[in-house]
Amino acid sequence: MPAHDFDVIVVGGGAGGVAAAVRAAQLGGRVAVVEDKFLGGLCMNRGCVPFGQMLTASHLVGSIALGREMGVECSGVTTNLSALLKRQNELVGFMRQGVQGLLSKNRITLVRGKGRLSGRGRVAIGEDLFSAGKIILATGSEWVDPEFVEGNLPGVINSDSLLTAKTLPKKCFLFGNGPRLVEIAQFLQRFGSEVVFAFPEAALLHEENKPIRSRLEAALQAQGITLLPRTEIHQVRIKENLLEILLRSKDREERLLVDRLVTVKRKACLEDLGIESVGLDSSAEFLEVNERMETRIEGLYAIGDLCAPENRHYSHFASSGGIVAAQNAMGARTAFNHRTAVRVAYTQPQVACVGMTSREAKEAGYEVAEGSAPLSMNPLGMILAQSEGLVQIVADRKYGEILGVNFIGEAASEMAGMGVLAIQMEATLEELAKAVLPHPTLGESLVEAARDALGRAIYLP
Amino acid sequence: MPAHDFDVIVVGGGAGGVAAAVRAAQLGGRVAVVEDKFLGGLCMNRGCVPFGQMLTASHLVGSIALGREMGVECSGVTTNLSALLKRQNELVGFMRQGVQGLLSKNRITLVRGKGRLSGRGRVAIGEDLFSAGKIILATGSEWVDPEFVEGNLPGVINSDSLLTAKTLPKKCFLFGNGPRLVEIAQFLQRFGSEVVFAFPEAALLHEENKPIRSRLEAALQAQGITLLPRTEIHQVRIKENLLEILLRSKDREERLLVDRLVTVKRKACLEDLGIESVGLDSSAEFLEVNERMETRIEGLYAIGDLCAPENRHYSHFASSGGIVAAQNAMGARTAFNHRTAVRVAYTQPQVACVGMTSREAKEAGYEVAEGSAPLSMNPLGMILAQSEGLVQIVADRKYGEILGVNFIGEAASEMAGMGVLAIQMEATLEELAKAVLPHPTLGESLVEAARDALGRAIYLP
Repeated sequence: MPAHDFDVIVVGGGAGGVAAAVRAAQLGGRVAVVEDKFLGGLCMNRGCVPFGQMLTASHLVGSIALGREMGVECSGVTTNLSALLKRQNELVGFMRQGVQGLLSKNRITLVRGKGRLSGRGRVAIGEDLFSAGKIILATGSEWVDPEFVEGNLPGVINSDSLLTAKTLPKKCFLFGNGPRLVEIAQFLQRFGSEVVFAFPEAALLHEENKPIRSRLEAALQAQGITLLPRTEIHQVRIKENLLEILLRSKDREERLLVDRLVTVKRKACLEDLGIESVGLDSSAEFLEVNERMETRIEGLYAIGDLCAPENRHYSHFASSGGIVAAQNAMGARTAFNHRTAVRVAYTQPQVACVGMTSREAKEAGYEVAEGSAPLSMNPLGMILAQSEGLVQIVADRKYGEILGVNFIGEAASEMAGMGVLAIQMEATLEELAKAVLPHPTLGESLVEAARDALGRAIYLP
Repeated sequence: MPAHDFDVIVVGGGAGGVAAAVRAAQLGGRVAVVEDKFLGGLCMNRGCVPFGQMLTASHLVGSIALGREMGVECSGVTTNLSALLKRQNELVGFMRQGVQGLLSKNRITLVRGKGRLSGRGRVAIGEDLFSAGKIILATGSEWVDPEFVEGNLPGVINSDSLLTAKTLPKKCFLFGNGPRLVEIAQFLQRFGSEVVFAFPEAALLHEENKPIRSRLEAALQAQGITLLPRTEIHQVRIKENLLEILLRSKDREERLLVDRLVTVKRKACLEDLGIESVGLDSSAEFLEVNERMETRIEGLYAIGDLCAPENRHYSHFASSGGIVAAQNAMGARTAFNHRTAVRVAYTQPQVACVGMTSREAKEAGYEVAEGSAPLSMNPLGMILAQSEGLVQIVADRKYGEILGVNFIGEAASEMAGMGVLAIQMEATLEELAKAVLPHPTLGESLVEAARDALGRAIYLP
């Protein structure tokens, strides 16, 4: 008779939990997934997938101007929010069924309910208690109420509200920073809202390299989005069915009347997870894990948003971390490779930054060599009018090892894959410089950027 | 006094010649480029760049249907050929100036005229004779008259005619095979022509892996292009201002009346190049070179279409070969990496095949492991309605080394860069399987295909 009900219990059926469960089952484990809401988690139900579609739609709106330059003329362009949301609901419904199918195919037990840790190796779900050799916590993140409003002020919303909206607000105020909010800004603007976007920092995506973030800011402003850097909210109140927002920056105050205020701050779902039962601190910002996704409690793993600061809340970290956790739980010894971390904004232009920024590389003690190639000098870039596009490489000057690769422009998120492989495979500038990429592609600029870092760009003026 | 007029003379100022000249100059060479027509060659003037734009425009036409599904509605869509060609002329003019600037910046002498080899180390241009330590031949390829018509039959055209057309033919017959003709088929169809496309082989892109080429054929047919495999032209004649074409396949004859017949057959420009003066055969199909781009004559290199069969006429082989030739000419010892060769069709869906096909890998003696992941199971693929998309990997079963990677779908040509790096860096299936690519991207399916080849796909049903 087995000592435990399951070899592995995964608490949370989102992007991380599902990947962990499938991998553990592939390795022969008897696996359970505990989920009280929708399978697929934030990513599939309220994040990457619906917003991926919204950004695709807004990308198409943005492409109409380029088409006109090329003789493809569309008259009478309109945007229809309900058609967009209808397709989104169908898509998400189809994907949820897919996840259900994956669990069945891999003989994974789906337990409906909210899972709470109940001491080492035990998970309580309602009145039931299950035991497992290993437990993987994957409960993700949750919304944080904005600090600047007391209680619930109608009109102050997060991105969930956009997924069920009947119409979009006429004038929107966005407050915060990070790729998700930048994406929302562009979607709202392209679908007809007037957008004012304020952030406390000096720049959007302030942690990324300057050439990337300045080009993004310039592009968004050119598209008609108002950006207010170094700005704080002093007060929000209701005024004639609108929100009156009092903004303060160093040298001025501003008063805005808007229909909606959008923020998207999130934090790890640590409360009510029962981790005190094994001596872990549920008031922490997130759960600390090592590169094997182990908490400091033996046999207890954590993955995804639950074990990451907000700027590392990405579905691909969750699913990859899930696979690493599952492999370790089933007796292998594998590690998560943090060196290839990709941060993405699915805007037009897209932004994708892989590995270390220049600052991080310097702080890590590297003597840094940088190279870049603008997409405005790339033949396909010229065709696609990529005036704000750029590929930028951060490398170690001594051995030429690639440390970071940054992309802004069309297909940046797909090109980022080359950056991931280059860093993962420990490619050098010399190796990238001799890669033979197809012509004409935007990716060719990665090779040119590597040559630029070596002081021998071929096509740069 | 220097022994020669130049260290390196490059005969031909196309994609290959320009890259070779710049690289040789970077390495300290006194360099001349000989060109009698336009700088930039076929690629920039009549190939990749103008057709890159035409395909981008036809891609936008194709995206309008997806937009409609997502609530982005255009009430009227028209295509305007003259606007397209106007932008193309501006773009090509701008790029030609850019090449001129590159030559000046690198202090490269541009000699206007037709260069002919005149014995070892000598190039004749008109009445002038120049000497050089090394010579790089880069004269590219030229049109081959179709075998099935005697002399010049009006209405039988190649792709050059499309670049100056006032209007597009109402009904077009395309004959031949290969990515360029597939691209032309889609452009014509999207811009309003009726297209019938016949080829002698059993399949379009018949040398590529079956799952890729069958999906391409299915997509093109669904878009309204008529494909006639295993078909030969028996006769072409003028009939009432149209072309009457008599087609024959194994079991039937067919008669078509069309406005234009398009073929795009090309061969290396070996004639009138003076290579007999050093004992080389100008009647060969192309000039043979080793992996250092050296002909069998010391100090004489050849690059690009001049040294390749037609199915290897790609601008990126020319420019990369040019850099390799220049480095060797200037005393380095570098080799062209044929293992990462990419073949691309910029259609919608795009096709990009890197490295070995399954058949080539088997013929090379590998025990082959294959894995694939359809884009219809990829979250972004679902959003983008990539029902015909696929990523397919060919690997060596024993060590898991990646030998080939094939993509069909949106952004295939950009994703191909990952295939190039994987093969160049000698990545294994295990290494690809643990790459952490951003979500949602189509590129994620490369990782899933690697897992599939290892028998452990996570998300495939």
